[in-house]
Amino acid sequence: MKILIKNATLISMSEKREKIENDKDIKIEDSKIIEIGKNLKEDADKIMDATGKIVMPGFINTHSHVPMSIFRETVDGYNLQDWLNKKIWPMEDKLTNQDIYEASLLSFLEMIETGTTTINDMYFMTEEIIKAAKVSKIRLQTSKTLMGQNDEAGKQRIQELEKLLNTYEGKDERITFNIGIHGLYTSSRDYIKQCVHFAKERNLPIHLHFCENTKEVEDIKNAYNATPIQVLEQEFTGQKLILAHCVKLTKEEIERLKNLKVSISHCPVSNLKLGCGIANIFEMVKQGINVTLGTDGQGSGSNLDLFETMKYTALLQKGIQEDATLLPAYEVLKMATINGAKALGLESKIGSLEVGKKADLIVLDLQNNAVTNPINDLCSDIVYNAKGSNVMTTIINGEVVMENRKVCYPKQEIYEKCKKIIERIQ
Amino acid sequence: MKILIKNATLISMSEKREKIENDKDIKIEDSKIIEIGKNLKEDADKIMDATGKIVMPGFINTHSHVPMSIFRETVDGYNLQDWLNKKIWPMEDKLTNQDIYEASLLSFLEMIETGTTTINDMYFMTEEIIKAAKVSKIRLQTSKTLMGQNDEAGKQRIQELEKLLNTYEGKDERITFNIGIHGLYTSSRDYIKQCVHFAKERNLPIHLHFCENTKEVEDIKNAYNATPIQVLEQEFTGQKLILAHCVKLTKEEIERLKNLKVSISHCPVSNLKLGCGIANIFEMVKQGINVTLGTDGQGSGSNLDLFETMKYTALLQKGIQEDATLLPAYEVLKMATINGAKALGLESKIGSLEVGKKADLIVLDLQNNAVTNPINDLCSDIVYNAKGSNVMTTIINGEVVMENRKVCYPKQEIYEKCKKIIERIQ
Repeated sequence: MKILIKNATLISMSEKREKIENDKDIKIEDSKIIEIGKNLKEDADKIMDATGKIVMPGFINTHSHVPMSIFRETVDGYNLQDWLNKKIWPMEDKLTNQDIYEASLLSFLEMIETGTTTINDMYFMTEEIIKAAKVSKIRLQTSKTLMGQNDEAGKQRIQELEKLLNTYEGKDERITFNIGIHGLYTSSRDYIKQCVHFAKERNLPIHLHFCENTKEVEDIKNAYNATPIQVLEQEFTGQKLILAHCVKLTKEEIERLKNLKVSISHCPVSNLKLGCGIANIFEMVKQGINVTLGTDGQGSGSNLDLFETMKYTALLQKGIQEDATLLPAYEVLKMATINGAKALGLESKIGSLEVGKKADLIVLDLQNNAVTNPINDLCSDIVYNAKGSNVMTTIINGEVVMENRKVCYPKQEIYEKCKKIIERIQ
Repeated sequence: MKILIKNATLISMSEKREKIENDKDIKIEDSKIIEIGKNLKEDADKIMDATGKIVMPGFINTHSHVPMSIFRETVDGYNLQDWLNKKIWPMEDKLTNQDIYEASLLSFLEMIETGTTTINDMYFMTEEIIKAAKVSKIRLQTSKTLMGQNDEAGKQRIQELEKLLNTYEGKDERITFNIGIHGLYTSSRDYIKQCVHFAKERNLPIHLHFCENTKEVEDIKNAYNATPIQVLEQEFTGQKLILAHCVKLTKEEIERLKNLKVSISHCPVSNLKLGCGIANIFEMVKQGINVTLGTDGQGSGSNLDLFETMKYTALLQKGIQEDATLLPAYEVLKMATINGAKALGLESKIGSLEVGKKADLIVLDLQNNAVTNPINDLCSDIVYNAKGSNVMTTIINGEVVMENRKVCYPKQEIYEKCKKIIERIQ
């Protein structure tokens, strides 16, 4: 199958190319981009005219809990612990495999409709999430969450993850894995050692909640007799890490982070909504740390729309540092694309549009909304004014999953099923 | 002309009604709501089915500079003073009457497409803005901006505003006025006295930039030998005020504010983007001060979409106060509707849907987007997940200005004209 996209304004996010290129054609064969240029030969099975439209890489969401779509807007007026204890955990206990599958379909639909092509997930009943990803054709990095003590139950969790990896790893190029450890505060040091050992054995990155709020930091200090950053230095050296949140870190701790192999998943919307605070990603960027963007689960993050996350990311740093010159729009686009790919170890395949890379891309139309006109600075217009609804077409691994806002999903059926799940378990 | 909206989920924002009411009909005659109830008699010229949709008051934007639509995204990488000196002011000098008219049309189109029915404006060449508002059928409160010294030029500005008021005040119920004073830092104390005197004479509220950033506060201290709050207390007592921004106020100063007749126009997006900071509106609400929402001009605020402003408002306070229970969604909806009406002195006419009030309302459809499903908390879903594009229909003063996303504007023509203006003056 060959697809030719014609006459696009291209924002490839490739260091080897200009930031913005006009009148470019992109040719795709099967899963890959095989040519980028002007007036390419029209020898494709499908030709898409992108005149006046923008083509760029699909976004990469580096922190989420995919099936939590059904918990959207259940949090207003609760603090984190009350929300978990009184609302989420009792409901999660009632979730069936089928629920996880349906709720995941809703999340993947959200992603496709808002231009995200890859997501990094941390949850349980992972087989169902993988099943939904395959149906949705989403690129997924996932795990089965590890947490607890180095006892029989803990060991069994590692065994289950091992079984999952043995069954699925390397079978579908869109499905990759990491080792999801819930957090330092929900595992013992001994168990952390086992998990890191397992990650090294499988040569996989670790995905970890880290320094999300003040209470977590205190809990870790009490449990480990060490600060979170010290635990990282003691137990995770040499290990590739994706750290979600990193809100409660001092400048000095951020400086120490750069000596570890870390990427940060910055989740500004969730961090605000749960009353955690604002991560100092300006300092992280200054230290050369790879900052990427995440939404967190919809329970706290409301939705999986990375357009929103980009805008919050850019604005919050300008606001709290009181410097309007910080984080230009293009830097934020990098966080949502190529930086995310690096975090997941997929930078040779996705995150920018280049010949030989996978065709994970979106087509944006900014021509028909008052809020995106006139276009004085295209990258700023994307970061500050574009919405998920400006994504007309989404292509993942060379497959068109949405075209002119039409998806092949039975959308209303998914909404109704998810509504029934939440009604049942509430 | 009679319009009947049937079977809506009604969020009237009226204190006399339930927060959310199902299956309600709303009957409009000419400019007013004449009946709200179930199964109303179908004796209307136009019947609109709102089954599964939400009807609520149109939003009220209490701080903007309407013609600045053309300056959207010209600010990235500049600090405020550089942006004004090097970019905005040289361009503004070249603006013609026709430019102001076209640029205002774009702003009003933006409002209609994103559910805002009333806007409070501060700019110049006000006759053109009024002309565009009449064509767009927008509800506008405006002024001709006063600033400077109590010299001939300053007196002439007041005379011009007086002439404007004499020509337009009371002629069109959608067009009302206030006295726009640019700021304390751009006027002398003597001139401020003249402006306040004039406002009292005309019995109109004053619209004023106030404590937007640190430099402004310092400039005022130097010029007045008094803090901004002291100048307010000395010069504006008894005067109804709409204060835009209020970022740089201490808790103690906020407490003093409540003794004045003030409403706050909170503009969180612009305040972040210009590196000003985050206003402590949580404290203002606690003190019983009327907090309303504004976007500022698009040059700094990016766009006029109050859905975004609502979300930023709710999230920022939760985040900086580190308390997820603050500012429930319904409180934020009040800021965007009835509180705005109170600020503009229009609360007997707009801001909530009640029999006898003007029919300024929007119809929202949250059924067809993944990000708004399932609906677990309707008000939260509106504040955190709805977008301007969920507004299907906008009615102002009983006139349908957008129906099922269709406006009667020549949209592309407006975009093209605005593009040409910015290209010419750059």
